Parts: sequence; C-alpha cells; structure tokens
Amino acid sequence: MSTLEIADTTIAGPEDALALAVAQALRGVRGANPLVGAIITAPDGRVLASGYHRGRGTAHAEVEALAGFNGFNESSSTSGFDPADSTLWITLEPCDHTGTTGPCTEAILASGIRTVRYAVADPTGPDGGGAARLRSAGLDVGQVDAEQARRAGAADLNPRWMLARDSGRPFVTAHLAQSLDGRVAAVDGTSQWITGPESRRHAQSVRSRVDAIIVGTGTVLTDDPRLTARDAAGRDLPRQPVPVVQGRRAVPAGAALRGGDSWLHVEDHDPQVVLDRLTAGDNAAGTTVSSAWPHGGTRPGHVLIEGGPTVLSAWMGAGLVDELFLYQAPLILGSGLAGLDLPQHTTLSHALHLTLDAAENGAISRLGDDVLLHYAAP
Amino acid sequence: MSTLEIADTTIAGPEDALALAVAQALRGVRGANPLVGAIITAPDGRVLASGYHRGRGTAHAEVEALAGFNGFNESSSTSGFDPADSTLWITLEPCDHTGTTGPCTEAILASGIRTVRYAVADPTGPDGGGAARLRSAGLDVGQVDAEQARRAGAADLNPRWMLARDSGRPFVTAHLAQSLDGRVAAVDGTSQWITGPESRRHAQSVRSRVDAIIVGTGTVLTDDPRLTARDAAGRDLPRQPVPVVQGRRAVPAGAALRGGDSWLHVEDHDPQVVLDRLTAGDNAAGTTVSSAWPHGGTRPGHVLIEGGPTVLSAWMGAGLVDELFLYQAPLILGSGLAGLDLPQHTTLSHALHLTLDAAENGAISRLGDDVLLHYAAP
Ligand SMILES: NC(=O)c1ccc[n+]([C@@H]2O[C@H](COP(=O)([O-])OP(=O)(O)OC[C@H]3O[C@@H](n4cnc5c(N)ncnc54)[C@H](OP(=O)(O)O)[C@@H]3O)[C@@H](O)[C@H]2O)c1
Ligand SMILES: NC(=O)c1ccc[n+]([C@@H]2O[C@H](COP(=O)([O-])OP(=O)(O)OC[C@H]3O[C@@H](n4cnc5c(N)ncnc54)[C@H](OP(=O)(O)O)[C@@H]3O)[C@@H](O)[C@H]2O)c1
Repeated sequence: MSTLEIADTTIAGPEDALALAVAQALRGVRGANPLVGAIITAPDGRVLASGYHRGRGTAHAEVEALAGFNGFNESSSTSGFDPADSTLWITLEPCDHTGTTGPCTEAILASGIRTVRYAVADPTGPDGGGAARLRSAGLDVGQVDAEQARRAGAADLNPRWMLARDSGRPFVTAHLAQSLDGRVAAVDGTSQWITGPESRRHAQSVRSRVDAIIVGTGTVLTDDPRLTARDAAGRDLPRQPVPVVQGRRAVPAGAALRGGDSWLHVEDHDPQVVLDRLTAGDNAAGTTVSSAWPHGGTRPGHVLIEGGPTVLSAWMGAGLVDELFLYQAPLILGSGLAGLDLPQHTTLSHALHLTLDAAENGAISRLGDDVLLHYAAP
Repeated sequence: MSTLEIADTTIAGPEDALALAVAQALRGVRGANPLVGAIITAPDGRVLASGYHRGRGTAHAEVEALAGFNGFNESSSTSGFDPADSTLWITLEPCDHTGTTGPCTEAILASGIRTVRYAVADPTGPDGGGAARLRSAGLDVGQVDAEQARRAGAADLNPRWMLARDSGRPFVTAHLAQSLDGRVAAVDGTSQWITGPESRRHAQSVRSRVDAIIVGTGTVLTDDPRLTARDAAGRDLPRQPVPVVQGRRAVPAGAALRGGDSWLHVEDHDPQVVLDRLTAGDNAAGTTVSSAWPHGGTRPGHVLIEGGPTVLSAWMGAGLVDELFLYQAPLILGSGLAGLDLPQHTTLSHALHLTLDAAENGAISRLGDDVLLHYAAP
C-alpha cells in the first residue's frame, strides 16, 4: 500500500487530486487493462490513501485505495476518519462489472464513502457504467471538469488502450533490442546477446504478462527461439504465452516454439490478418489455441511483437503498435540489419512520431550497461 | 561551492573519501582538461569542503575545495578548523604548473593544510609533478592504495583524456542527432529538426567549449551550417570555434562557415591528417588559423565532430572519438541515412563497445521530447 508515500500531502483542488491519482496510475503496467489511479481525501484535503492498478488479475485502483483507507482507519486509534466525509478520486469511471476481481461499485458502496469524482467517463466499455450504478444508490458522483482532467494528465493515460479496445483487438506491445546505431544483427547474422542480462530479465517480465508472442518466420529460422516466459532463475512460469509465427515459410518440425501446449502459424504478411486469427483462435498449421488464453478470457487481451525487423516494421507501419520497449546496448555494430525498416517512408514528414511513456518505471531507465526507452504511440 | 551538499557527511576511510571526490569530479565536463574532484576532511572524518573542476579556464578542483574550506572557516565563529589537522583528498595529483589559473601546489601551501592524499599520479604530464613539490615543502603527501582508488572509481575518470594527451592530440567529442531507429536524414535528404530545441541548446553548449568543429564536405554541401557557438537567445558568443571541413570537394565560395575569422579545409579522408593539420595550424584552402585558439594555447585542446555520418564513422572507426553525445528523437524515420556506417564491421565481435558516461549530467538525460545518451569510449 502506498499510503505512506503520500503522507502529509494535501490537495488544493480537483486538478491537484487528479494529478496525484495520475501519478499513481503511471506506476502500473500497460496491457490488457488500462492504467488507473485513485486517491482518497479527507474534508480538509489531506490524502488518506492511494492505489493503482497493477495489471490484469490484480485489484482495481479504487479497491486498492479503499483497502489502504480501511487499514489506515483501523490502525489510527485516536482519530478515525468518517468514510461518509471522505472523497474518492479516480482517473477512470469505476467499473460495474464482475471480472476476475468483482465490481468496483460494490467495493465503493461497502466502504461507506459517499462522494466520488472521476476524470474519464467509460460508460460504453464492457467494464464501465459504474457512475450510474453509484448514483442510483444515492452517492454524490461527478465527472471532473474536462479541462482540469486534461491538465492533470488524466485524459492522456490510456488513448491507445481505448483505441485497441474500441477496435476489438488486443493491446500490442513491441520489443526491440538494438545497438546504439539502430541495428539488431551483424551482416553475418550474428545477433545473440546484443543486450545484457538486465535487459533480458525485463523482456522476460513483459513476456510473463502477454497472451501471445508474435515473431516472423525469419526469426524462427535464424534464432529458433522457445518464446517461453521464464522467472529470474530461468524456469518456465506456469502461464505461458502462445507463440505465433507470421510468414509463409514452413515452421520446421523441430522448431523450439513447437514445444509448448499450443502455437499458431499465420501464413500471411498482413498484421490485421494475424489479429483476426488470434481473436478467432483457429490455427492453420499448428495445434489449436485453446479457448482459454493464459491470462483468461476467450480473446487475447495483450500481445507482444518480438520481431524480427520485417514483422516489427510491418506492425509499426500499420499503426498497430501501442507501446514500444527499446533496449539500447552501448554498442556500435556499424552495419547489418536495421531494427526498423520502412522503405516507403522517404521524407522527414513521413516519420512516425512516438512519445516517451512515463508508465511503468518512467520513460527512461538504465538496465545494467543498456538503456531502456519506453515509447508510446500517440 | 558545494559544501552544503555534503554537509553532515563523514568518511569512513580513504576509499570513502575518494568516492566522494569522484562524485564531485563527475559533475564536471569532459574536454581539454581532465575531470578532477577534491574534498577536505576534519580529523574525525567530517567533510568540510568539496570542489570539482568545471572545465578549461576555471579553478582546479582542489582550489575550489580550498576556497570553500576557507569560506567555511571564516563563517564559523565558534569553532574554526585548524588547516594543519585537515586532509585534502584529490582524485588526481595536484599540478605544479602555471596555466590560466596558477599552480595548485601554491594554493595548497598557502592554505596551511599539511596532509594531502591523491588517487592517480600524474608526474609526467605538463601539469603534474605537484606531489614532489609539496613533499619538498614538508607536507605529508601520499598516493592512496591503487586498489582502493580503483574501487572508488578514481582510476576510471580520465582514461581517454590521458590517451589523447599522451598522443599529443586534442580530446575528441562527437555529436550525433538521430531518430530512434538510428537515422540522421530521410531518403530525400531532409534532416533538419530531427531533434528538438532542448537538444539543440545542449549541442550549442558543447560547441561553446571546443576549439574546432569538424564536418565533412557532404554536410557543408547539404546543410551549409555556420558552425558558430551561440547563446540561448541565438546570439554568437565572443569565442568561436574554428570550422574545419574534411573532404576533397571544394568548399563553395558562399559557404556560411566562411563567415567567421578563420576556418580550415583538410582535403584528406584520414582523421589523423586532420589532427596533424589542426595541431600544425596551417591551412590549405581557407584563411589561416591564428596561433591562438579560441580558448587559448597554440594547439586545440578539444574538438567536436558534428558529422555527417561518413566523417563521424571514419573517426569512430579509427578509435579517435573519446566521447559521444547521442541525441535521440522519438521518431521512426524507417529509411534514409544511418548515423553510423562501418561496412567493414561484419560480425558481432567487430562491434565497438562504448560505456555509459556519468560525467556532466549523468549518462542519461531527458531533453524535452528527446533523450540524451552520453557515451565514453572505453
Ligand atoms: N534484436 C531483436 O530485438 C531481434 C528480435 C527478433 C529477431 N532479431 C533478428 O532479426 C533477424 C531476422 O530478421 P527478419 O526480418 O528476417 O525476421 P522476421 O521479421 O522474424 O521474419 C521476416 C519474415 O517473416 C515473413 N513476414 C511476415 N510478415 C511479413 C511482412 N509483413 N512483410 C514481409 N515479410 C513478412 C517473411 O517470410 P516468409 O517468406 O516466410 O513469408 C519475412 O521474410 C535475425 O537475425 C534475428 O536474430 C532481432
Ligand atoms: N543528425 C546529425 O547529427 C547530422 C550531422 C551532420 C550531418 N547530417 C546529415 O548528414 C548528411 C550528409 O552525410 P555525409 O555522410 O555525406 O556527410 P559528411 O560526413 O559531412 O561528408 C561526407 C563527405 O566527406 C568527405 N570525406 C571526409 N572524410 C571522409 C572519409 N574518411 N571517408 C570518406 N569520405 C570522407 C567525402 O567527400 P569528398 O568527396 O569531398 O572527399 C564524403 O563524401 C546530410 O543529410 C546532413 O544533413 C546529420
């Protein structure tokens, strides 16, 4: 619980409250679920608790904040805070939907809090509509002024997540491990261990939260990766992403990625076809993907493009990459395969503009000798 | 003076003292002079003052620390510290040479400090030999155990500066402004404004401390840069680096870089020839470089390679780049000119390994929407 970190903070108004909730939200990871942050304040503006959503299968932000609030109240022997006097601030409208964690509306009603403010409405989403439910139970529920929410950063938290959801496709994360001159393999094809162990551990943590990992036939034929999610000691985790191979060539009978429970081969160059097939769950050449994806559900909520350059560039060029983890090693390869290759982009005005993404550990981090740059598609 | 920042610090021993001095040293900038840091401690280990060298023309680290120490002593009305009881710790042997700032040995003798410990000996350098001078004046002067100095990071502060000095050449900084996929210009040649204003301001601050800026004929013919050092408001600074053009093609009569007091054209592809010519100071096709370089001296102490890719790659491949500022914009160009091109490097084991360089503002900084990565050649 992060109550301690915001101890002695007092909000000056709605924008301030939302800015704190946004800072909480940014501690989460992107993927199948949106980034959401919440705080609870006393009538004098003192912050009593906070929470954020840590990703699929974990408590929603407001539930985490409420747990902190209750713990706080129990431990404060002299002065309890009356929930009825407190305000819950959330960056996204609370859900009214029983997923893996139960609806947030129930948790709010149970807490005794009677004032709720949220930044971004989500009435049409499958998890949305909580505001109406709370209002019908008599709570004072309101959306913060849109301009204040925007200035606090709440409007910018999940544009790509909403786009993915509204398109009926999973959230797409891309992985690129390159030399500082933007290359992923030398002329002779050697490419193993461009980045160091810390980068590879981070890449494993990303693997552990996705439903599927997509690579091209080129990568399968060159590197023969297993594409399993492993813990720090190198052991396979219980939940494994489904390996997906994109491309027309055959996947060799002995390919390492055939070793898991299921895998998928999509003999097409169009990323949209891969998405359609993932969503349909059928399979042309491999075993059939079971109807339950590793993290639950009948459709994948989050997929990872691990490359190589041809496949990554195709997804990037199609505007289908939501988030990019760029692991940059302190190496100059000087020649060889570029990590991104979009020959149709011939002038500066064709450039794809990304933005540094503060979610997770901040946009820029050092991983051993490497640098991790976290970019979001705008 | 940075005395305040290290208030309440107490050293546990020589390694600890040097680690603090190293942290000070790393606040400086690389260039014609080495990074040097110093602290002064009381007999109980308390840190009384600290200093670092801010670059050419400014006080040496030990002089800065001594100034802080004296200021500290004057302002402390109740308990003065006896200099004779205090110890001066320096990452590099003090100089005994009158440059722009007077020998450090004189400042130490004048301070009354009688115990001096340093990490790296510098008896043969033009500025070195201070230890013998202080010893002959009766001071207790000693070099810290090499292993402790190494662990504190003092041995790693200036390897490339020493290499450059011992080779009789200036310190070489390289500049590279690229898209996140390692490109500096689109296929059609468009390349202006890849990076943002904050990056360009940093690049100007680097220009302001060098004696010469080297570009290839390709850059002159494409971009026609002025290569002047400008302040934040865009005004030319009083001291201007000498523009140097490398390549066999003619520099057009109307080229913008001809606008300054002097410039140099080296009609040769070998970086070593450029260095020889800079050191000799003659000039084949332009005006003659005056014997005084913008920051003083008859030889340039610090030069900047601004590109383009062909020239930068030649210097990089020749092992003549000491430090690289990589400005990386959140753009994907997808095709076009790579910032580094070393076609002879065909396998991963040919890769050039750099290291993240903590000097100046730390190895990694955010400049607006861009990221600045500071690399050192090892
Ligand atoms: N550093 C990293 O992050 C990283 C990650 C992965 C791979 N790599 C390196 O990348 C290299 C392989 O590069 P690569 O580009 O060949 O790998 P790739 O992208 O995995 O595979 C490319 C192949 O996939 C098929 N393909 C799928 N979608 C396509 C599309 N939209 N357009 C065109 N072709 C499509 C084509 O083969 P078909 O003829 O079969 O259709 C194409 O030749 C290896 O050296 C590997 O080590 C590096
Ligand atoms: N983003 C950045 O940081 C940055 C900086 C500078 C330039 N640029 C861009 O870079 C592009 C120009 O690229 P470029 O590579 O042509 O520029 P360049 O490196 O400035 O010039 C290359 C030319 O210099 C001569 N040269 C000097 N030393 C050489 C060597 N060792 N080997 C071979 N040739 C040598 C050759 O011309 P001769 O035939 O005359 O000998 C060669 O064609 C422009 O689009 C410019 O905008 C970008």
